Amino acid sequence: MAASLPTDAFAAAASDHVFTVERHDELQLSPEDRKRITERTKWVLDSPDPPSFRQEILGSIKNVVCSQKNKKPNSSQPPLARVVVFLRYVFPILSWARNYKASMFKDDLLAGLTLASLCIPQSIGYAALAQLNPQYGLYTSVVPPLIYTTMGTSRELAIGPVAVVSLLISAMCSKVVNPVVDPVSYTKLVFTVTFFTGAFQALFGLFRLGFLIDFLSQAAIVGFMAGAAIVIGLQQLKGLLAISHFTTKTDVVSVLIAVVKSFRTSWYPQNFILGCSFLIFILITRIIGKRNRKLFWLPAIAPLVSVILSTAIVYLTGADEHGIKIIKHVKGGLNPSSISQLQFNSPHLRESVKIGIVCAVIALTEAVAVGRSFATIKGYSMDGNKEMIAMGFMNVAGSMSSCYVATGSFSRTAVNFYAGCQTAVSNLVMAITVLLMLQFLTGLLYYTPVAILSSIILSALPGLINYTEAYNIWKVDKLDFLACAGAFFGVLFASVEMGLMIAVAVSFAKIILNALRPRVQELGRLPGTDIFCEVDQYSVAHAVPGVLIIRLNSGLLCFTNANPLRDRILNWVAEENQKEDIKRPINGVILDMSSVTNIDYAGILALEETNKKLLSGGIKLAIASPRWQVIHKLKVAKFVDKVGRDCIFLTVSEAVDSYVGSKFTGPGNC
Amino acid sequence: MAASLPTDAFAAAASDHVFTVERHDELQLSPEDRKRITERTKWVLDSPDPPSFRQEILGSIKNVVCSQKNKKPNSSQPPLARVVVFLRYVFPILSWARNYKASMFKDDLLAGLTLASLCIPQSIGYAALAQLNPQYGLYTSVVPPLIYTTMGTSRELAIGPVAVVSLLISAMCSKVVNPVVDPVSYTKLVFTVTFFTGAFQALFGLFRLGFLIDFLSQAAIVGFMAGAAIVIGLQQLKGLLAISHFTTKTDVVSVLIAVVKSFRTSWYPQNFILGCSFLIFILITRIIGKRNRKLFWLPAIAPLVSVILSTAIVYLTGADEHGIKIIKHVKGGLNPSSISQLQFNSPHLRESVKIGIVCAVIALTEAVAVGRSFATIKGYSMDGNKEMIAMGFMNVAGSMSSCYVATGSFSRTAVNFYAGCQTAVSNLVMAITVLLMLQFLTGLLYYTPVAILSSIILSALPGLINYTEAYNIWKVDKLDFLACAGAFFGVLFASVEMGLMIAVAVSFAKIILNALRPRVQELGRLPGTDIFCEVDQYSVAHAVPGVLIIRLNSGLLCFTNANPLRDRILNWVAEENQKEDIKRPINGVILDMSSVTNIDYAGILALEETNKKLLSGGIKLAIASPRWQVIHKLKVAKFVDKVGRDCIFLTVSEAVDSYVGSKFTGPGNC
Repeated sequence: MAASLPTDAFAAAASDHVFTVERHDELQLSPEDRKRITERTKWVLDSPDPPSFRQEILGSIKNVVCSQKNKKPNSSQPPLARVVVFLRYVFPILSWARNYKASMFKDDLLAGLTLASLCIPQSIGYAALAQLNPQYGLYTSVVPPLIYTTMGTSRELAIGPVAVVSLLISAMCSKVVNPVVDPVSYTKLVFTVTFFTGAFQALFGLFRLGFLIDFLSQAAIVGFMAGAAIVIGLQQLKGLLAISHFTTKTDVVSVLIAVVKSFRTSWYPQNFILGCSFLIFILITRIIGKRNRKLFWLPAIAPLVSVILSTAIVYLTGADEHGIKIIKHVKGGLNPSSISQLQFNSPHLRESVKIGIVCAVIALTEAVAVGRSFATIKGYSMDGNKEMIAMGFMNVAGSMSSCYVATGSFSRTAVNFYAGCQTAVSNLVMAITVLLMLQFLTGLLYYTPVAILSSIILSALPGLINYTEAYNIWKVDKLDFLACAGAFFGVLFASVEMGLMIAVAVSFAKIILNALRPRVQELGRLPGTDIFCEVDQYSVAHAVPGVLIIRLNSGLLCFTNANPLRDRILNWVAEENQKEDIKRPINGVILDMSSVTNIDYAGILALEETNKKLLSGGIKLAIASPRWQVIHKLKVAKFVDKVGRDCIFLTVSEAVDSYVGSKFTGPGNC
Repeated sequence: MAASLPTDAFAAAASDHVFTVERHDELQLSPEDRKRITERTKWVLDSPDPPSFRQEILGSIKNVVCSQKNKKPNSSQPPLARVVVFLRYVFPILSWARNYKASMFKDDLLAGLTLASLCIPQSIGYAALAQLNPQYGLYTSVVPPLIYTTMGTSRELAIGPVAVVSLLISAMCSKVVNPVVDPVSYTKLVFTVTFFTGAFQALFGLFRLGFLIDFLSQAAIVGFMAGAAIVIGLQQLKGLLAISHFTTKTDVVSVLIAVVKSFRTSWYPQNFILGCSFLIFILITRIIGKRNRKLFWLPAIAPLVSVILSTAIVYLTGADEHGIKIIKHVKGGLNPSSISQLQFNSPHLRESVKIGIVCAVIALTEAVAVGRSFATIKGYSMDGNKEMIAMGFMNVAGSMSSCYVATGSFSRTAVNFYAGCQTAVSNLVMAITVLLMLQFLTGLLYYTPVAILSSIILSALPGLINYTEAYNIWKVDKLDFLACAGAFFGVLFASVEMGLMIAVAVSFAKIILNALRPRVQELGRLPGTDIFCEVDQYSVAHAVPGVLIIRLNSGLLCFTNANPLRDRILNWVAEENQKEDIKRPINGVILDMSSVTNIDYAGILALEETNKKLLSGGIKLAIASPRWQVIHKLKVAKFVDKVGRDCIFLTVSEAVDSYVGSKFTGPGNC
């Protein structure tokens, strides 16, 4: 707050002296130098106005429309060709299908079958995680991948239900309708949520709002995913221990209490032993697969092998009569229509929309992150907006054919990639395989133990926990790590939504905190140049006697930091002049504004006050290298008229020359 | 989202060519130039680490402690002298009282008496606005000014109850306790709120948290004050129309409905006529006072004259029996103690604390703004932190002696200034005058009409509405104006707190919005220099063929703008290379990071991806003039190792030299 400059006494003592010194200095500047400096100041002051607020908004809207137009057919083509081009834009399959070769199909067939073998047990498990009947997981692995094959731009993305989205659906929907008490209403709610998820995703893509998914910072996602993985793992205790009365809450404390309570009632350790044995089997195959990349198919088919083996064991030993919990009936047949189950007039519409937005963002975040990383490896580009439209359409279509939210799965995409898929045809192969399975083979799942599904999900979780990235975040940015840790502990100890909210809140608080801190640094000349750098950062830089050069190290000079900055500068000048070993009193302050991209009303007021105070102490203020918005606003606010046009400089170097005279006549000055 | 760089085709076609061109270019650089550039890059890369997050926090705490220490006595002095110095620090009166002269007292006496004549009617009116009995307003004009005289650093600030804080108290406290139903509890609540207000103010000062009051931007205050003035004006309709059943809400709609309703029951137009006549009288004296500064005392004593005249008229005509509402009994005598009325165990403690914080911030905002503007006119400095401590102590003391929240009044401070006050002694004179009035003359107020108090308050309101400043804000910053308008309409149509909340929310949203917008601009060389500026801003600047120089015009490269920036850059490069009139394909992209003061994990990832993509197209990426935090984080994240040390440059000019060779051998290159 305080500006404790001893102005009165100081002004009386120093002003005369200062002005003499300055006048003496000015004589040292040659007429050419003065002309050069004046001309450069003119460049700064006579620049055209930057785009106004209205123009900027209109411009960004226009940008959206035009960049879509560019890819659309131009009007010189005949109508039919235009339709073809448009269809090719919407359905990329029309472009790449023409170049599709038999050799590619061999690869895609193999990848698709491997994918299906992993997808079938995972889909059933994820449906259980989402508190839905097993067939819904399988349905979700049919319709969305089929649609994605025609509309998507990624070649590797494996579409279907994923763990984190299943957890989100379960955690958020079960708060609205209890799935145990009223499973029919719950299923209807999930379809409605799926519809809204798809609708929002398609809208994000159509209106190019992809930046919305950037609101979840990388750090927040790392924390959220790790927290979600642990929460999902804990949920699997229900299946592994065959607990019948489990909590609907997802936080660690509630789940552990429910587990401890279940120990008091009867529990069947056989389930746990069976599940753990096959979990160990799957993990061993994974280690083998990692050591020898040629055996990639081993971990990929291990889940299916586990299902077949364990089902056979249970069937043959009749273990289901001795406490082993089994899936029992899985409804077979193709996806039934669920259009009539979408509820747009229910009292839960508001919640459906809310959950839809959250699912849309999380599902897109995972798919885009996964798709982009594999696209980068193969060296092609994914069109983010097209991708969002494809995801949106596949989920809207899914919501009408008994599917819940599908997206790109991390674990299955990796399997698809290592299995050597060439195009999205592998998704097609997978979908058809699952379809055949639904039509003819659901009866075989009757004796499959529930514990096996839990171990399959558990085996997929370590991939969601990324220690290395968390460590990197910690190294680079402590506040980013706070967002990461906030998301992690929020998901673990509060709820999934709370974790997300904490992460978003911390991320934005970080931005505001950055705008708050008033950072100023002294600049000095680098030897033999006319470059001025922070004296703390560059030990070679040395201060210019008689002039204090200050850089405002903040992107915004606004109400949060304007007054503290003003006080900091005034105190600094006062301190410098009180130093005993001072060679020459400060007679000019140069503010390097090169970091300040924008200024607001409070910022301009603070600059005016600084100028007034300094002048009353006989010290001149100069503004060096103001950015476009800043100089425009200073002109509009009549600040330039108040300080004088000769106090604005193109660079720090010119301001120094004009203040202390051309003492440095190195090659930097022309 | 999308990065639609036609990488595959482009890379195949261009990469060989590009690298040939580059190798050819490198030959043009003389060995000295190369050495110079390498050495400068070394300066950038070998700079010491910036203060870590922990160091920065510790540093700012240390800064607070030390800067207070500096003003405290040093240990070399004898104990007694140290006590004296400390006392002088806490009570500035001990310093300036020694130089106090009789001639000064003459001015202060005159100013103090003028102040008192304005203060007495205003205090009674503001107490009515705060829904308290009239004597509490007078009490508040006694104890707080007395304490401020000893502790304050401003010479002009007139201390006492003010309109906006009275409105705040009335609006927020009447939601907790209804003042009509239970006036005793309401009064107790107000004292408790006053205590917390003082406590928070003192704490802000002691811990140097003055920046907290900066959270209300200038723009928000202008809007809030204007809205509050209109709301206060509407509240005066109760007095002017002598309405007995008024609404406790403060928004325009509720008040107007209450007024219309009151017309249906009996109302007495005499009150309105009396009030309006004296309002016109006061306004005329103000116009006269403004035209002729020597007659400043005319508007200052006009309120007191109105009170005396109207009281005499009512007493002589017996108008109180014909519908004119009068104040009736005002309790006389000195301030009674109210320590026993402070309630720290009541169920309303939480609300008291909350209202206390809001009142503390608003009261400080008004006092500091008023005090500072007059201090600037007289050319001395006010110590913000000391001021906050003084305000805090005076309000805590006030809460124990039947006062409600006092602060510096805008209208009375102006009167004090024009009346020629020299020191805070004028406050002392005023307080003693009010004290005498309380002791001996309260009986005279029995017949004072309520309508007169309303007109006195109404006459003070225009000063709170600052059209000029609102217009300036509109000119300079449209988003700032949005905060201003939000506060204004929030106060008018919702509630006082809602207005404040809207203003704070809009102000912070502005900061986040600024961090969101990915702004990049192309740089070009200014003719005859090695200075690179935005080509849009400087029409004289021209682009360097073969190199795209881009400045990131954003203070933070963080998760909100990192991905869009990456896509913008990649699209730009692709577009440039597709241009038909291109002289030379782009073979290097130089990112000028001079505006970027900080970067986060997402920002570094985006830079890495940009570099990877560009490299796959045979284009080299260079980072020019990175700031301290940025280069530090790039080093920690191993980005420098990945791009190569030779891709970091001290300035854009060196990066250009290194890419296109020293074609420009003007005096800028040594």
